[in-house]
Amino acid sequence: MTDSEAAAREDAVVAHCRVRREDFRRRLKDYLACPSVSTDPDYRDGMAAARDFLTQLLAGTGFSNVRQLDGGVGGHPALYAEWLGAPGKPTLLVYGHYDVQPPDPLELWDSPPFEATERDGRLYARGISDDKGPSMIALEALGAFLAVEGGLPVNVKILLEGEEETGSPSLPNILMQNAALLAADAILSADGARWRADLPSVNVGSRGNGGFEITLRTASTDLHSGRYGGAVPNALHELSRLVAGLHDSEDRVAVPGFYDGIEMPDEKARADLAAIPFDGAAWADAVGAREKGESGYSTLERLWDRPTLEVNGLWGGYQGAGSKTVIPKEAHAKFTARLVPGQDPQRILGLLKDHLRGLCPPEAELTFSGDRGWTKAYRVPARHPLLAAAEAALEETLGRKPLRVRIGATLPLSDLVQEALGIDTVMFSFSTSDECFHAPNEFLRLSAIEEGVAAWVAILRRVGQQQPAAYAPFRRR
Amino acid sequence: MTDSEAAAREDAVVAHCRVRREDFRRRLKDYLACPSVSTDPDYRDGMAAARDFLTQLLAGTGFSNVRQLDGGVGGHPALYAEWLGAPGKPTLLVYGHYDVQPPDPLELWDSPPFEATERDGRLYARGISDDKGPSMIALEALGAFLAVEGGLPVNVKILLEGEEETGSPSLPNILMQNAALLAADAILSADGARWRADLPSVNVGSRGNGGFEITLRTASTDLHSGRYGGAVPNALHELSRLVAGLHDSEDRVAVPGFYDGIEMPDEKARADLAAIPFDGAAWADAVGAREKGESGYSTLERLWDRPTLEVNGLWGGYQGAGSKTVIPKEAHAKFTARLVPGQDPQRILGLLKDHLRGLCPPEAELTFSGDRGWTKAYRVPARHPLLAAAEAALEETLGRKPLRVRIGATLPLSDLVQEALGIDTVMFSFSTSDECFHAPNEFLRLSAIEEGVAAWVAILRRVGQQQPAAYAPFRRR
Repeated sequence: MTDSEAAAREDAVVAHCRVRREDFRRRLKDYLACPSVSTDPDYRDGMAAARDFLTQLLAGTGFSNVRQLDGGVGGHPALYAEWLGAPGKPTLLVYGHYDVQPPDPLELWDSPPFEATERDGRLYARGISDDKGPSMIALEALGAFLAVEGGLPVNVKILLEGEEETGSPSLPNILMQNAALLAADAILSADGARWRADLPSVNVGSRGNGGFEITLRTASTDLHSGRYGGAVPNALHELSRLVAGLHDSEDRVAVPGFYDGIEMPDEKARADLAAIPFDGAAWADAVGAREKGESGYSTLERLWDRPTLEVNGLWGGYQGAGSKTVIPKEAHAKFTARLVPGQDPQRILGLLKDHLRGLCPPEAELTFSGDRGWTKAYRVPARHPLLAAAEAALEETLGRKPLRVRIGATLPLSDLVQEALGIDTVMFSFSTSDECFHAPNEFLRLSAIEEGVAAWVAILRRVGQQQPAAYAPFRRR
Repeated sequence: MTDSEAAAREDAVVAHCRVRREDFRRRLKDYLACPSVSTDPDYRDGMAAARDFLTQLLAGTGFSNVRQLDGGVGGHPALYAEWLGAPGKPTLLVYGHYDVQPPDPLELWDSPPFEATERDGRLYARGISDDKGPSMIALEALGAFLAVEGGLPVNVKILLEGEEETGSPSLPNILMQNAALLAADAILSADGARWRADLPSVNVGSRGNGGFEITLRTASTDLHSGRYGGAVPNALHELSRLVAGLHDSEDRVAVPGFYDGIEMPDEKARADLAAIPFDGAAWADAVGAREKGESGYSTLERLWDRPTLEVNGLWGGYQGAGSKTVIPKEAHAKFTARLVPGQDPQRILGLLKDHLRGLCPPEAELTFSGDRGWTKAYRVPARHPLLAAAEAALEETLGRKPLRVRIGATLPLSDLVQEALGIDTVMFSFSTSDECFHAPNEFLRLSAIEEGVAAWVAILRRVGQQQPAAYAPFRRR
C-alpha cells in the first residue's frame, strides 16, 4: 500500500485528529497541570481545576447534560456527560478518572510532576498514564466524530470519576443513586492499561483490592533505649513480627483461609498462560528488581491469578539525620491486598484482622483504621459483544490479533458497576503497564496517542454495527 | 534539730547557693534556650550558643585556661577549664555534656522544648535532665566554693563534651591529644542520672552502646502494587523479616555469638539484685508500657546485666494521608545495641552485620551505614576512693546510705577515659531516670537542684580530705 493509498483509506475522523495533533497535546498538558490528587486534602484546588477543565471540554465538544454526580457523602464528585442521538444503537458508558496518585517523593522526579515534559518520544507527568492520557484519547476520538460527522455511531454516556486512586468510596452511591441516568449496554473503560507496548492485547480481568492501616502502641511515650531497652516491648520489633508473620518462608500469604474459594485455572489454561511470550527476568530487571513471589507459580500467574497482601508503607521511631537512641512508643503500617475471583473482600478483611490480632502480643495495643476499597476481582465474559468489538478494533488498527490478558491491578468500577448497573466492563486504555504510574517519572508513550485515537474510532464504528439485543444476555437488569 | 540549729550547721557554700537559687534558675533557663542538638547539622548555631554561654560562665566563675578542644576531625568541640590551686590534693576531672537529643516529635511537647517551663515542681525543657541541669548543678557548687572560700578543696579540671548524644565520635582523639592537660586521679561525672527519686543510690556501672543503619533495596523505583504485587520483592516485607529475625520468640537476641563471653552475676549477686525494692509492673505502667524482655531474667537484670539490640527507627513506602498502592523500592532501619561487660563492641558489630547479611534474601541489596559509638560497658572498681567519697557524701546529704545500682544507659566517656587516661569514672548526676530524656516533655525535679548542690559540696570536701596516693592503685598510667 502506498502512502497515498493509505491516506485515501484513512478514516476521516482519524485524519481529523491527526492534523490537529498539536492542539490535542496542548489540551492534554493543560489538563495535566491540574494537580488532582484525591487522597490528600491539600490538593482540593487541583481536583476542582481538573473538573473545571473537563466540564468546559465536554460542553465545548458537543456533549449535553454535563454535570457533577456525588454520592451524597462529601467525597470528590464524578463528572457526567451524554450524547444520545443514535436511537436503536447500543449505549456505551465510557469511563475514566480524573484523579491521580500523590507525586511524592518529589525529589525523584526528573521534571516537575505537574508540568508535562516531553523527552525521547514520551510525555512525563503525574497522571498522564493513569488515567489522564488514556481518557483524553477517548474524549478526542468522541469529539472528532461530533466535529466531522455531527454525531456518534452509538449512544455515549461519559463518567469521569474523582476517587479511583482512593478505592472509589463514593462510587457505589453515585452508581446506585443515578442508575437510570447511567443505564447502558456495557462500559468501555479508558482506564486499565495495555499489558505491553510490543504485543497487542486486550484485558479481560483485573484483581480486586482493599486496604487498611494499623497502629501498634507499646508505651505512652518514646523511651530511652538505655533506660528501658530490653525490659519493655519495642513497637517496631513487634510490628516487624506482625508483618513478617503475614507471609511464610515461601512467600505464601500465611493468613488462614486467605486462599479458600479461589478457582484456579485448569491445566489447559495454565499451559496457555505459559505459552505467552514473556521474559519475567527482563520484566523485573527493567525496574531494577528480581522475580520473587508465591512458591509454585510463574510470574504471570502470580500477577494475574493469585492474590497478594502488601505493605505499602511502614514507619516508626526516629527517621532524621544521625541517631536517636529511642524505643518508639508506636509504629504504623499501611496494607493493601489484591484479590482474585472467589475471594469475598469483607471475608478477607476479617481474616486479615483476625490474623493480625492473633499475632499481636498482649503487651501491645493494636488498632485498625483507614479501611478502604475492598472491591472484588473481575472477569469479562468470554463471548461479550463489546469484547469482540474491542478485539476486532485492535486487530484492524494494529494489524495483529490481540492476546487476551489480565492485569494484576484493580478497577473498582467493574465490580461496582456489576453490582449497581448489572453490566460488564471492557478495558480499552492506551497507557502501558511499564509507564511508572504510582511512582516518580510517570510517562505516556506519544505513539500511544495516535494508536489510541484510531482504535477508539474503530471500536465505536464496530459497536455502531451491533444491535442492543446482542448485549441483552449479558445484562443483569 | 531545730531550724536554727540546722541553719547553724549548714555549710556556708551550700547556704550561698540557697539564697541565690533564683539566679541559678535564670542562668539554667538561658542555657536551656540554646538548642544544642548535636546530631542534626541544622542546629549548628544552637551548639555554638551553648559553648558561648559556658565559656562566659566558666571564665566569670574563676576558672582559668578556658578553651575548646576538638579532635581535629571537624566534630563539635568540647570545652575545657581548670582550677589547680590545691597542691597536694587529688585532681578531679569533672565531666558533663552540653549537647542534647533532637526535640522531635515537636507536637508531643506540652511547652516549647527550648523555653524552660515550670509546672508542678518540675522544670521542662529539652536537655534539662540529660545533661544541662545536672552539669549546671556541678558548676554551681564549684562556683560557690570559689566565691565563698576563694578556692576549691581539690584541684578541678572541667570537660564539657558536645557529642555525647551522637556516640562521642571526637572524644577518643580529644582525650588522646590532650592526655597531659586532662590528667587527673579520677573522673567525677555530672552525667548518668539517679536511678529513682525515692531511693538514694550510686551508679557503679553502665552498658556500652553502638549503632548503625541499614538500607534494603529491592527495585530501582517504587512500583504499583497491582502491576507488580506478588511477583517482585517488597522492601518492607523483607526488612520486617530481617528485624523479626533479630530476636527469637522469647525475646532473646537471635544473633549467633551475641551473648558469648558475658560474665553473669553469681547466685549471691542475683539474690542481692532481687532484694532491691523494685516494682517492675509499676515502673513500666508509669510510661504506659508492660514488662517484656529476654526470657529467664528479671526486669532489673534485663536493664543492668543483659545486653540488648533495638530498632530505634524504621521506615519505607508511603506515610502520608490516605493510601498509595505502592511497593516501596527500599526500606531503612536504625539500630542500637546496649552491651555488658564481656562483649567486645567491634566483634558484636561484626556479628550483627553477618547475621543481617545471612537473613537478607538474594533478591534484595543490603547496605550498611552510620556506624557510631561502639563503646564497651563499664564497672566502677568496688573499692575506688571516689566511689567511697560519693557514697559518704550522699549519705550525709540525704540521711540514708545509698544503694549501689547500675544503669542500662551508656556513658561512652567511662570506657574511652579508661583507654586514653587510665582512670575511673564515678557518676554523680542529680537527674532521675524517669525524667523523659530522649523523649518529649523532658523535665528535672526542682528539688534535685538543692540536693545536688549540697551533695557536690559534700563530695568535694571529702575528696579534699583524701590523698592522691589513695588513687594510685586504680590508675593505669
